[in-house]
Amino acid sequence: MGETFVVIGGDAAGMSAASKTKRDDPDREVVVFEKGDWVSYGACGMPYYVKGDVETLEDLVAVTPEQFREERNIDLRTQSEVVAIDAESKTVTVEDGDGRYEQAYDDLLVSTGARAIRPPIDGIDLDGVFTFHDMDTARAVRDYVAGDEIVADRDGYGAELREYLTGERPESVAIIGGGYIGLEMAEAFDARGLDVTVYEMLPHVLAPFGDDVAETVEDHLREKGIDVFLDTTVEEIVGDGHVAGIEAGSKRHDAELVLVATGVAPNTELAAEAGVETGETGAIATDEYGRTSVENVYAAGDCAEAHNAVTDASDWVPLALTANRSGRAIGQTVTGDATEVGDIVGTAVVKVFDLEVARTGITDLEVAEVAGYDPVSKVVTDGSRAHYYPDPKPITIQMVGDRETGRLLGAAMVGEEGVAKRIDTVATALHAEMTVEEVQNLDLAYAPPFSPVWDPVLTAAKVLNGTLE
Amino acid sequence: MGETFVVIGGDAAGMSAASKTKRDDPDREVVVFEKGDWVSYGACGMPYYVKGDVETLEDLVAVTPEQFREERNIDLRTQSEVVAIDAESKTVTVEDGDGRYEQAYDDLLVSTGARAIRPPIDGIDLDGVFTFHDMDTARAVRDYVAGDEIVADRDGYGAELREYLTGERPESVAIIGGGYIGLEMAEAFDARGLDVTVYEMLPHVLAPFGDDVAETVEDHLREKGIDVFLDTTVEEIVGDGHVAGIEAGSKRHDAELVLVATGVAPNTELAAEAGVETGETGAIATDEYGRTSVENVYAAGDCAEAHNAVTDASDWVPLALTANRSGRAIGQTVTGDATEVGDIVGTAVVKVFDLEVARTGITDLEVAEVAGYDPVSKVVTDGSRAHYYPDPKPITIQMVGDRETGRLLGAAMVGEEGVAKRIDTVATALHAEMTVEEVQNLDLAYAPPFSPVWDPVLTAAKVLNGTLE
Repeated sequence: MGETFVVIGGDAAGMSAASKTKRDDPDREVVVFEKGDWVSYGACGMPYYVKGDVETLEDLVAVTPEQFREERNIDLRTQSEVVAIDAESKTVTVEDGDGRYEQAYDDLLVSTGARAIRPPIDGIDLDGVFTFHDMDTARAVRDYVAGDEIVADRDGYGAELREYLTGERPESVAIIGGGYIGLEMAEAFDARGLDVTVYEMLPHVLAPFGDDVAETVEDHLREKGIDVFLDTTVEEIVGDGHVAGIEAGSKRHDAELVLVATGVAPNTELAAEAGVETGETGAIATDEYGRTSVENVYAAGDCAEAHNAVTDASDWVPLALTANRSGRAIGQTVTGDATEVGDIVGTAVVKVFDLEVARTGITDLEVAEVAGYDPVSKVVTDGSRAHYYPDPKPITIQMVGDRETGRLLGAAMVGEEGVAKRIDTVATALHAEMTVEEVQNLDLAYAPPFSPVWDPVLTAAKVLNGTLE
Repeated sequence: MGETFVVIGGDAAGMSAASKTKRDDPDREVVVFEKGDWVSYGACGMPYYVKGDVETLEDLVAVTPEQFREERNIDLRTQSEVVAIDAESKTVTVEDGDGRYEQAYDDLLVSTGARAIRPPIDGIDLDGVFTFHDMDTARAVRDYVAGDEIVADRDGYGAELREYLTGERPESVAIIGGGYIGLEMAEAFDARGLDVTVYEMLPHVLAPFGDDVAETVEDHLREKGIDVFLDTTVEEIVGDGHVAGIEAGSKRHDAELVLVATGVAPNTELAAEAGVETGETGAIATDEYGRTSVENVYAAGDCAEAHNAVTDASDWVPLALTANRSGRAIGQTVTGDATEVGDIVGTAVVKVFDLEVARTGITDLEVAEVAGYDPVSKVVTDGSRAHYYPDPKPITIQMVGDRETGRLLGAAMVGEEGVAKRIDTVATALHAEMTVEEVQNLDLAYAPPFSPVWDPVLTAAKVLNGTLE
């Protein structure tokens, strides 16, 4: 028998690592512990399941537990929670329905993910107040908001959800937090016919995308009939047993359902108890191979930091690609083929109703200054197609460069088409540490249906470069 | 009075140069000679005008002659053909309706463009046989194929067109050549209700895009009802006065209209007579500032070469962005602010009915070998969206890398969505001389409506890299 690779957590990072190890070294024993039932699921698809674009929860699963076990020969143990890591003896303690046992490892991957933050708001424990971070919640919420339209298999429900979701179909929902999940769920709830109100404590929604892009998003949300309250702190969630409303900005708003979407926090406790160090971001610190401060212990996915190529510092951006990529690299490394997990540049995209909203790198001038740059920002709006081609949509780009070196630092972008993948051009330029002038001179694709002759990215670079020269 | 900058040819490169010079140095005298009436027009939009997506020819004009004259203070002289350049005395000879005169220059830009090739096929001079390379032809063809649906202003017609386009609306068209123009016009003619047949002498349409991508395009054309003959040489165009058919592959095919779209050739003769050297491609040789072999004579646009960053050699890719960009750079250089025209990487995109078809860099293995590489090619098909998100479309990518250095060399791509701007990621990586492994590790945007977690570009790089390791 070969060495044993133990993985804690069976989602993107964990299953990518397990699969890659088994593929490259079939003799190695690979054991994955997952405390729930679901593995390798597309959590990013949950809002579209609630909305109804995705028919069943099972559709979100890329590879089933049976496939991992039978086709990939991975010893996947669901309903099995790792409760302790002993780095001295290189064992983990596992709790399942039958009790506790120990499992030895040669290499260990901590991919324990992140959890939804539950801020200390009065009334957050009322029935009908949710965070949205697991598959069973998604199923419960969908059944609840869909009313009698949907008859779903209720087997997957947690008991605590079944209790508070037995009422009549709600007519209104309050969403606390205007981030990715908050806005994706606003679209889902709206599609289900609910009155939707979003409360954001900051001056703008989608903070990482910058004010200019956010304002376009806020206008669009309001056009779609979503009430958006900015600079508004939710003081209390009110109700008697079940939620009845929100106190926000010193006013009372009715709400029969409340989604708390104020962000996520990395699940680091298990690793920290075993002496694994966390970084400044609060997530588990890792090196270029995903190794933690403890020998033979790796970390990847939403619980771990990554190196940001633009800030040249550790960063925590819990997104799916980073999890998959670093998991895969670690899976390769533990077989003896050392593989770097790769840098991030902070690329993200989100659909908000008809808008594509994207970002990469540094778009916040203060963040740029902290990273040692002398940033300049320019905002440009241009069309998604040649001016004469039917139905061009405006694309607004905020682009940031460094006055001292001319280096491109980042961009945010919003528009009804051609944004989601246009940001990748900027992301690639960031990885290559290009100057804004170099971006201006990129040979990008042009045809009238897809772009002006000067792509909006080129135009933004041209305008920004004019201020850097 | 400052120095005089003379420009020959008033389209993309010429007007970009003239505008930039005047903007940066308003005191400089800028004289543009254009032998026709149209300046600064979007030739790439002409197929969409014929199709009817663009209403008037004037819509294709970005800036009118009046605007250039009055708002930008450019001395633009239309209907004025430069018939000779005297580099010794630094003068050009101009012919207009009133006769000939000389104009002195300090700096001269040759931006004489390209012309449609007329291959030596018997019958090419019959009425009803066209090449498609100017605005007046576009207007004539549109009126002809639209029949009585459209009443266009016929003032712009050349006399030779008016003659052979006075017949009844045609029912069938033969297109000789399956390149960009041929396929864009196939779509336009099909939209006008004509029976369309495309004859391509090579084994596949869209040669620069490679066989794998071309096959998808050919299947799509046939699904749309276009007859496509590959490996088929047109032996003769037959008819008596007006075209009646085509002899191709030893068979006779009826056709009431014939579009000859077998490519373009650079207009170099005027410059060559003045001693300006052409390169191996046949276009005017230029250096990194767009300078030709003759002092104070620049060249840009479809008549000029550019430096290809992937082959590290002079290349001739007559496309709009290169023309605009190099024109602008030269306009800046002549004011004393030396600016490089920038490299190309051979990026192109074309819409073929519902398909987006794109390419960049080197996708042909023989071309790669000539450029000194040891190329490997892989073809990958993946979805444009997360597998569970509604209506994902397949994207097929052919990606090429160098076995020796691991360097990315190019890619071609086809699909119904998300292709046109996805190619820009690859183009940017080519400019940065990235390895395939670096591409595999790019932090690209992911959200279920826009991409799988591993973007198809990343998946292609992953598969290709697996063969390079």
